[in-house]
Amino acid sequence: MNVSEFKKNGHMIIDWIANYFENIEKYPVKSKSSPGEVISKLPARAPEKAEKFEKIFGDFEKIIMPGITHWQSPSFFAYFPANNSFASILGELLASALGAQCMSWATSPAAAELEEAVMKQLAKIIGLPESFCGVIEDTASTSTLCAALSAREKYSDYAINSEGFGPENKFTAYCSGQAHSSIEKAVKIAGIGKNRLRLIGCDKNYAMIPSEFESAVKKDIKAGYRPVFAVAAIGTTGSTAIDPLREIGKICKKYKIWLHVDAAYAGSALVLPEMRYMIDGIEYADSFVFNPHKWLFTNFDCSAYFVRDKGALIKTFEILPEYLKTSEKSAVNNYRDWGIQLGRRFRSLKLWFVLRSFGVSGLRRIIKKHIELAQYFAEMLAAEKGFEIMAPHPLSVVCFRYKPHKNLSREKTDAFNADLLEKLNSSGKLYLSHTRLCGDFVIRMAIGQTGTEKKHVKSALNMIINTAKNMSK
Amino acid sequence: MNVSEFKKNGHMIIDWIANYFENIEKYPVKSKSSPGEVISKLPARAPEKAEKFEKIFGDFEKIIMPGITHWQSPSFFAYFPANNSFASILGELLASALGAQCMSWATSPAAAELEEAVMKQLAKIIGLPESFCGVIEDTASTSTLCAALSAREKYSDYAINSEGFGPENKFTAYCSGQAHSSIEKAVKIAGIGKNRLRLIGCDKNYAMIPSEFESAVKKDIKAGYRPVFAVAAIGTTGSTAIDPLREIGKICKKYKIWLHVDAAYAGSALVLPEMRYMIDGIEYADSFVFNPHKWLFTNFDCSAYFVRDKGALIKTFEILPEYLKTSEKSAVNNYRDWGIQLGRRFRSLKLWFVLRSFGVSGLRRIIKKHIELAQYFAEMLAAEKGFEIMAPHPLSVVCFRYKPHKNLSREKTDAFNADLLEKLNSSGKLYLSHTRLCGDFVIRMAIGQTGTEKKHVKSALNMIINTAKNMSK
Repeated sequence: MNVSEFKKNGHMIIDWIANYFENIEKYPVKSKSSPGEVISKLPARAPEKAEKFEKIFGDFEKIIMPGITHWQSPSFFAYFPANNSFASILGELLASALGAQCMSWATSPAAAELEEAVMKQLAKIIGLPESFCGVIEDTASTSTLCAALSAREKYSDYAINSEGFGPENKFTAYCSGQAHSSIEKAVKIAGIGKNRLRLIGCDKNYAMIPSEFESAVKKDIKAGYRPVFAVAAIGTTGSTAIDPLREIGKICKKYKIWLHVDAAYAGSALVLPEMRYMIDGIEYADSFVFNPHKWLFTNFDCSAYFVRDKGALIKTFEILPEYLKTSEKSAVNNYRDWGIQLGRRFRSLKLWFVLRSFGVSGLRRIIKKHIELAQYFAEMLAAEKGFEIMAPHPLSVVCFRYKPHKNLSREKTDAFNADLLEKLNSSGKLYLSHTRLCGDFVIRMAIGQTGTEKKHVKSALNMIINTAKNMSK
Repeated sequence: MNVSEFKKNGHMIIDWIANYFENIEKYPVKSKSSPGEVISKLPARAPEKAEKFEKIFGDFEKIIMPGITHWQSPSFFAYFPANNSFASILGELLASALGAQCMSWATSPAAAELEEAVMKQLAKIIGLPESFCGVIEDTASTSTLCAALSAREKYSDYAINSEGFGPENKFTAYCSGQAHSSIEKAVKIAGIGKNRLRLIGCDKNYAMIPSEFESAVKKDIKAGYRPVFAVAAIGTTGSTAIDPLREIGKICKKYKIWLHVDAAYAGSALVLPEMRYMIDGIEYADSFVFNPHKWLFTNFDCSAYFVRDKGALIKTFEILPEYLKTSEKSAVNNYRDWGIQLGRRFRSLKLWFVLRSFGVSGLRRIIKKHIELAQYFAEMLAAEKGFEIMAPHPLSVVCFRYKPHKNLSREKTDAFNADLLEKLNSSGKLYLSHTRLCGDFVIRMAIGQTGTEKKHVKSALNMIINTAKNMSK
């Protein structure tokens, strides 16, 4: 493809994307593709000769598009959102064209300095303490792993990095039973072991009970363990429960435990000053993660990881072989030492475009609207006979179920709701997901797509109510 | 930004990118920006009100562009390439617009199945055994970490994941002293410890000496260690040395050691059948990584990670909380369990566009040209008095230095070449990097940008020769 073909094809794709967003509601939200359907249409071998872009793009439309689940649909209510925006798409486009590999300051000074500036701006927008330093990681899984590794290293005096685990490193970690699976994954990867991750009990709101946390810590210390890592969830994945950060923080301080705050989804809501009660006690945190690629209009991937002590982070990851040495005379940030990967994309560009293109007031307006839509959804559903709201909904996710008859057994109620979910999703009109709360199967309605308006929520409401009632007839 | 503004701005950016590539040689390859120069022009706070895209883009051009190092310049000869192509940029653009989060098959069936198909095609193109399964990771750092963790888990019978390291897990790892720093990083993160990574001696070609590897393994076993992980480098970062895979593989088989092959850069050269001698013995490998985002025209990030036993990989990373359960009745690939991150971009799309847009013959032609250009460069430079070629150059990287006088001390020769490098790079006309080989400071000329032609190499040659000779006058 030469430059003039690129121009032609590029313009075509820009128009295609515009058209896609204008018509996104016509696609089934969840792909109706069956396992094996897409791959059966793809050849076993790449072509020997170059193919024309028209042909490739034609196959993209014919073969790939029917297998796409439309995460940007305004009726995508599954999981957590991974929303995007036109500003973000254009930022990513420029970054991929420049193709700068941003491992070191020298390999692209503007990328390093824009990242520093944008992360400072972002910290201010969400009300983090001035002392926090930020870096862009790919996902919250990675950010949380960075936190677990920093905890492991800090409390082994960086000896595990050099010597490996010794018999004295009997570490334990803590989170609530509602916290995200990435914490278990991080604890496994870090070599602590998932059986040394204590799942602390929750109150009726699915938030961690601090006294049970402290009891677990005490018990472990008595048994010869060294508690090193705790995660407070601000917005759990199941029901967006908010762990009591200040109380957890005091316990962490008392026992010298690294406190990581996982606000992967809910962090975006901190743009609203009235939501900052969620991070009351943030001064106790050692690290904090939230994903602008979830609910802040920045296309995946972009995870904002903040630490109180960047020295501990860098000391955990720093490596300087000869071939990476550069010659700056003054201090610069080499972000390769702030995480796992050496190579890094120029991710700050899209985030900068988003912050400026929406403005802080614009971010606040849409996030506020999403939260209000969730409250409206919960209120309307609660008023319908048979529907139960299963957890508090301080943010934009509502957990509910339908109980056709008061005395239906748990098993049958679960099965009914699993069927209801399957029926709703297979309609293609909307996409919801599920979790279990206290063992009960519940449906999650997660509002947060950039284009979601009241009409989409109303239409989802109607469909949920009608489908449930028809099924129970 | 509404849809019509997106169209307008999108077309503008496509034209800007076309123009950028047409004029890329006019920019200084290495940014002339000083530390702090970019950030001093950026405000401390994000704007309260939305800003017009014209204004944002204007700042991108004024503030950001002067701080960009132009990795896509045909005169970028530093590090390893991280090249891209128009097909790849358009694939990334579509993927970022669709914004599909590809953690599970169900969250985008086409993304999962295209990844499976493209990785099979890629394995064929580079001559990997049919039995290897592939997955796209972000970087070779991550792929190598996945390998180290799989080794740790396989040889602890998956006990470290669950119980953490025990006193019985006295593991050791192996690579040559020339292998990449990401191996040390992986061994640290995995909790093995860098002092248990044995750096094996190299021969005069900077390739690992297998007998020294076996001696180290025997010594460790005698000392009560359990060797679990070895890395053979196919194309070291310093000088693109090729470790003898078959001999290393036999030793790994004998002692039951996980053998990981790091071909991050050189793997792309395997599209040429005549280069496959490099992976003679690949049947011994447990895992293999190469980065299409380095030398295969696919924009960063896209690391191709292949394993012989996908069961071991999945068993290392699998986690299935309730909220991630999906309802497919038949077997599908949920790639979230093939690596560290839960969230995943739709990376296979750009790779598919590249394979089809270039065709296998097109990939071969350009890779072959780059290798020939490197041989030409080495030959011409070797013919110049004072220049020394410092290592074999089987691929597209040439290590050299200039020795103004025969009897100049090592320190002065090193200092001269460091000055020479600084002078060349600060010209803005080209960008080279360095390493040390046997302690000597050497300059690396890495050829591999999509647009690099003979004229760029000739012009670099002239500049290197003239600058060195002028400096020594």
